Amino acid sequence: MAYPQTRFRQTEFHGPSLLQTRRETVSHVTLQAQLDMLKRTGRFDCFKLQWHPVYDDTSQWPVPKHLFWDSDCAKWIEAACYCLADAYDPEIDKAVRDLVEMIRGAQGSDGYLNLHYTVVEPGKRWTNLRDMHELYNAGHLIEAALAHRNYYHNDLLLEPVLKYVKLIHETFGPEDHKRHGYPGHPEIELALLRLYEATGNQETYALASYFIEERGNPKGQDGKHYYDVEATERGERPWMRPDPYPTARSYWYCQAHEPLLEQKTIEGHSVRAVYLLTAAADLAVLDRLGLQANGKANAWSETANRLWNNMTDKKMYLTGGIGAIPAWEGFGRDYFLPPGTDEGGGYAETCASIGAMMLAERLLHLDLDGRYADVMELSLYNVVMTAMDVGGRAFTYDNQLASSDTQPSRREEWFECSCCPPNVSRLYGSLGGYLWSYGSANGEAFVNVHLYTTAKLCFEADGNRIVLEQTSQWPLNGKVSFQLKNHSSTKTTLRLRIPSWSVGQFTIDPPLPDASVEKGYLILPPTYTETNKSFTLEILNFKPRFIAPHPYTNQRTLTLARGPIVYCVEDVDNEWESNHFKDVSIAPTADIQEEERVAEITGEKYIALKTTGYSRSQSQWEAKQPGSLPGVVVEADTKETKDTALRTERSLVFIPYYYRANRGGKGHMRVGLNAV
Amino acid sequence: MAYPQTRFRQTEFHGPSLLQTRRETVSHVTLQAQLDMLKRTGRFDCFKLQWHPVYDDTSQWPVPKHLFWDSDCAKWIEAACYCLADAYDPEIDKAVRDLVEMIRGAQGSDGYLNLHYTVVEPGKRWTNLRDMHELYNAGHLIEAALAHRNYYHNDLLLEPVLKYVKLIHETFGPEDHKRHGYPGHPEIELALLRLYEATGNQETYALASYFIEERGNPKGQDGKHYYDVEATERGERPWMRPDPYPTARSYWYCQAHEPLLEQKTIEGHSVRAVYLLTAAADLAVLDRLGLQANGKANAWSETANRLWNNMTDKKMYLTGGIGAIPAWEGFGRDYFLPPGTDEGGGYAETCASIGAMMLAERLLHLDLDGRYADVMELSLYNVVMTAMDVGGRAFTYDNQLASSDTQPSRREEWFECSCCPPNVSRLYGSLGGYLWSYGSANGEAFVNVHLYTTAKLCFEADGNRIVLEQTSQWPLNGKVSFQLKNHSSTKTTLRLRIPSWSVGQFTIDPPLPDASVEKGYLILPPTYTETNKSFTLEILNFKPRFIAPHPYTNQRTLTLARGPIVYCVEDVDNEWESNHFKDVSIAPTADIQEEERVAEITGEKYIALKTTGYSRSQSQWEAKQPGSLPGVVVEADTKETKDTALRTERSLVFIPYYYRANRGGKGHMRVGLNAV
Repeated sequence: MAYPQTRFRQTEFHGPSLLQTRRETVSHVTLQAQLDMLKRTGRFDCFKLQWHPVYDDTSQWPVPKHLFWDSDCAKWIEAACYCLADAYDPEIDKAVRDLVEMIRGAQGSDGYLNLHYTVVEPGKRWTNLRDMHELYNAGHLIEAALAHRNYYHNDLLLEPVLKYVKLIHETFGPEDHKRHGYPGHPEIELALLRLYEATGNQETYALASYFIEERGNPKGQDGKHYYDVEATERGERPWMRPDPYPTARSYWYCQAHEPLLEQKTIEGHSVRAVYLLTAAADLAVLDRLGLQANGKANAWSETANRLWNNMTDKKMYLTGGIGAIPAWEGFGRDYFLPPGTDEGGGYAETCASIGAMMLAERLLHLDLDGRYADVMELSLYNVVMTAMDVGGRAFTYDNQLASSDTQPSRREEWFECSCCPPNVSRLYGSLGGYLWSYGSANGEAFVNVHLYTTAKLCFEADGNRIVLEQTSQWPLNGKVSFQLKNHSSTKTTLRLRIPSWSVGQFTIDPPLPDASVEKGYLILPPTYTETNKSFTLEILNFKPRFIAPHPYTNQRTLTLARGPIVYCVEDVDNEWESNHFKDVSIAPTADIQEEERVAEITGEKYIALKTTGYSRSQSQWEAKQPGSLPGVVVEADTKETKDTALRTERSLVFIPYYYRANRGGKGHMRVGLNAV
Repeated sequence: MAYPQTRFRQTEFHGPSLLQTRRETVSHVTLQAQLDMLKRTGRFDCFKLQWHPVYDDTSQWPVPKHLFWDSDCAKWIEAACYCLADAYDPEIDKAVRDLVEMIRGAQGSDGYLNLHYTVVEPGKRWTNLRDMHELYNAGHLIEAALAHRNYYHNDLLLEPVLKYVKLIHETFGPEDHKRHGYPGHPEIELALLRLYEATGNQETYALASYFIEERGNPKGQDGKHYYDVEATERGERPWMRPDPYPTARSYWYCQAHEPLLEQKTIEGHSVRAVYLLTAAADLAVLDRLGLQANGKANAWSETANRLWNNMTDKKMYLTGGIGAIPAWEGFGRDYFLPPGTDEGGGYAETCASIGAMMLAERLLHLDLDGRYADVMELSLYNVVMTAMDVGGRAFTYDNQLASSDTQPSRREEWFECSCCPPNVSRLYGSLGGYLWSYGSANGEAFVNVHLYTTAKLCFEADGNRIVLEQTSQWPLNGKVSFQLKNHSSTKTTLRLRIPSWSVGQFTIDPPLPDASVEKGYLILPPTYTETNKSFTLEILNFKPRFIAPHPYTNQRTLTLARGPIVYCVEDVDNEWESNHFKDVSIAPTADIQEEERVAEITGEKYIALKTTGYSRSQSQWEAKQPGSLPGVVVEADTKETKDTALRTERSLVFIPYYYRANRGGKGHMRVGLNAV
């Protein structure tokens, strides 16, 4: 296995890049800011197991406000351990040590380790797997422990976590004396598989595998659905249901409506869905690597792909955002992708795209296909990156494609349910692990380069050290210089992603006669890399392009993109706007000018795009008497003239969507404009 | 007051018309078919108070399947009494008598009269006003009793109903010893006000007025919201909530989130909303007529208008359908009007449009403005009429503007919750009451003609008989001939609606110099009607027109309409279609040909519209590799060429939307096509 969260340390961001700018911000600002929030809100001290006033707040059911505090701390520890490796900070270091000490002290003698059921509802553990995030929190503790061990080289956190995992394994499983349950919010599955990689413990693998496979079993517990059984045990009637459940037993919300292998479409809470699929893909990877023969590798792989396809083809925004529906933070019907709140959607949670990146990374191990990496890059630059301001102190939870009066384009320092901010930190901290996959096969070394930036990879293949360096200004332009250092006897194949948006337009210098591009990767065979230690790839076609969503989305909009970057308009550059660009349109023939700009805080460069569009006049509608027949008559013969008469030409400035809400303004923003 | 349900008998449909065709079908076929269904399902005998197996079914909460049976019977009685006046049928007559006898026998000694709480949950009456439809059922019993007395001229049904109303009045009201509740589903309010018109009983008025005004009081019962109090008394926690409630306490579902006078937008279950507003408008009408001085006539009138405007301007389909959201059978956000299930909406319940017609009729009494009548006519011909097949035996509950594989364009004989079929029957039965308003004022008689058809009105004004006859082929064409018979001393003003879609284009013959059109009504003053007893109005502009929904609906579609009729395409006429016309487009410049056709079963004529459109090729999308980057690139320079290349010209046949699903086919149907 080759988890990015483990392997990232083999990558060094050794020069300036947009990604490194964000990574440095996380190391130098964000971690400390988030630590301050942990302390200010009571989270930091929660493992002291003292009562906190928020525990008295029973206004939310079934999920009280403090239910994720374990994971908030765990994710921060994980992020901190990733970043400390890059940039040591004594205060962060001390905070990690303190937290670990408190977590160790919070563990029960039998290994149980959960804030809520230790302090608030003792005696009720494992009574509500569907809602209460016990196993989700456990999963993040596992991931924190792995990060902690990798950085600190001690087992101070791993030790209690292993003890906890042992208890969980004793509690859940196929055996008659165990409960046949599984977590409402997947996370522990992928964490357990990472733990299995680290420990080789078969019970850990079996537990993960069980959780994934048992999920959605209609007859799993006493001939009934597990969540029905535990709800009955809690004395609940079926219609006592969590807010995200539109009707009783809406188990699709947590992907438990049927066994995963039978699911045809990706449904429900988007973070849960992609975390679960990541673990399912891991099962297939483990089998392919010969580490575990679960006999269903093809089925897991097919399922992950089937649901990936449904997600990207029918349920993904042009930004890579997934999960359009605010009510259940998740997927809606096929093609239901309204841009913002006013249109009935626009959720696109940050964590969901982080999960999509993890899933894409796993799928690349199963099948090296550029379409996964294309989407991984899309999610990174357009959802994950827009979720944090350039200052590193403010975040978005959901990432709408259009603002509204009820939800202006703004970021917040923290959230009551604050899963996203530390998730962004840990993603940036481990980002090096997503850039490339590498290793050796059949006596040859290989590196598959998925993402371009400035970074250096060092790894050993069959005892020989290989160093691959890439230097670029990505995503400003497509020129990427490589330097390969390997032993002359190490035959090395490099595969360089040719993004689909480049439509196969690239140059490689020195040239490679009969260059072969397979599934979106340019193959540099050993014959090339032996003689060309320095070479330059240039991805062409960086000129701005208009992209359109599927017509079944009922949106006839044009979205500007350039390279991997999706653009938006903001009122900061377009000060005349006062209605969230609802009435602004653009023609596909519009002439686009590029303007290089420098961001104030970080000094990073970005390309603004300038063009001309139109403000649509609403005069035909405004002239209507209120309360009269719906609709207006479209005059056929004069349509063209009217359309022209009814619009005002506007100079438009577009900026990268990731850069929105960084410069003040009124919070008016939109990604896709009406197509003329 | 001048309720259409009372006044309809002054109108005679004395010649053939589309409306009379439907009315005859209801009299001769539908009433009997619905009676058969009442008998087959157990409803007919339910007032015998025997146990029925369906009462054992507790799978639905909070509303068991039989909860509306009282109202199903009551609405059928009401419809039957309206129709018997037109066309006597001994079997229908006997069934009404039998039902009334059974209802009389079902009443408790204290006057209580409700199936569920007498048979299934005795002792629990009035414990769940929010959900259990007790007062809704009572409302329909009142309306049935009024219809029954008007036809049979006896009090066999009114007597028990008055006893029941007395009990309700003793139970609910502002006095300390009474409960401060109100029905979850409004209906009894408008029924009580009709009862008040018939009896003059002040307690009846006071009870109606209380129910309307108390609704949504946040501190009505013991300083709390009534529905909170009764839920606590039932031992329910707030999150035990009915399916239509997205979150706990979603009282906007039943318009009880705040007092009605304070509500800014029309929200929630659409039938409830328009029934409630109808009653609110009635309060204003009573005040204007000097029958009741409630001191808030302007406020009720303003509220009814404010919410009417929000409804028609932002929450109404081009067909007149209201309530886009299936989950709560009601209104969504402003401009959220997806055409069908695949697009996330398209509900538009039949009963809601019947309610909208009632509301429009009331508003016309407050303010004679053609915009109300325009919408009333739109709802009648395009929602109510599409809800029943021409054979009179099959119905729709919701009236989507686009079919889908999950919901083809079909009708059903009956529904588990079967509110709509008998509602259609009683609407057609009392339709004469909607055609015109009339009376006398300042010594002059007047008739305001809202709807054109073939019909004769007879009424007395100041002791003089007035007869107004209209003859037309409406809605085939706009020519309407009138004959007025009045005493020479009776000065008579006629006001004839000029529909807004005619854009004021009409002729009147003999001509009327200086014709004045006020708020959509052509005024024929006494000077004209004295000398012209026969005259002909012709509404021009019957040529087909394209209408477009508001751009904020995110639909760029063109809908064909002709006169008051909205059109659709069906696969029956367009046999090549296999995907619900999702990919079919049309240009506003398309040339439209009319073709007169005759419907097989009824011999009624209708105009089909023939034109040319396009099938959009999905080739650019189909060529995409599954699971790759979302969206397609729009090539600016070749867009026009591509668009043309990517489409196939199609002959298109449109038929009236009301006529859909009458001729077999695969159930593919759509109202608005993509605009080229």
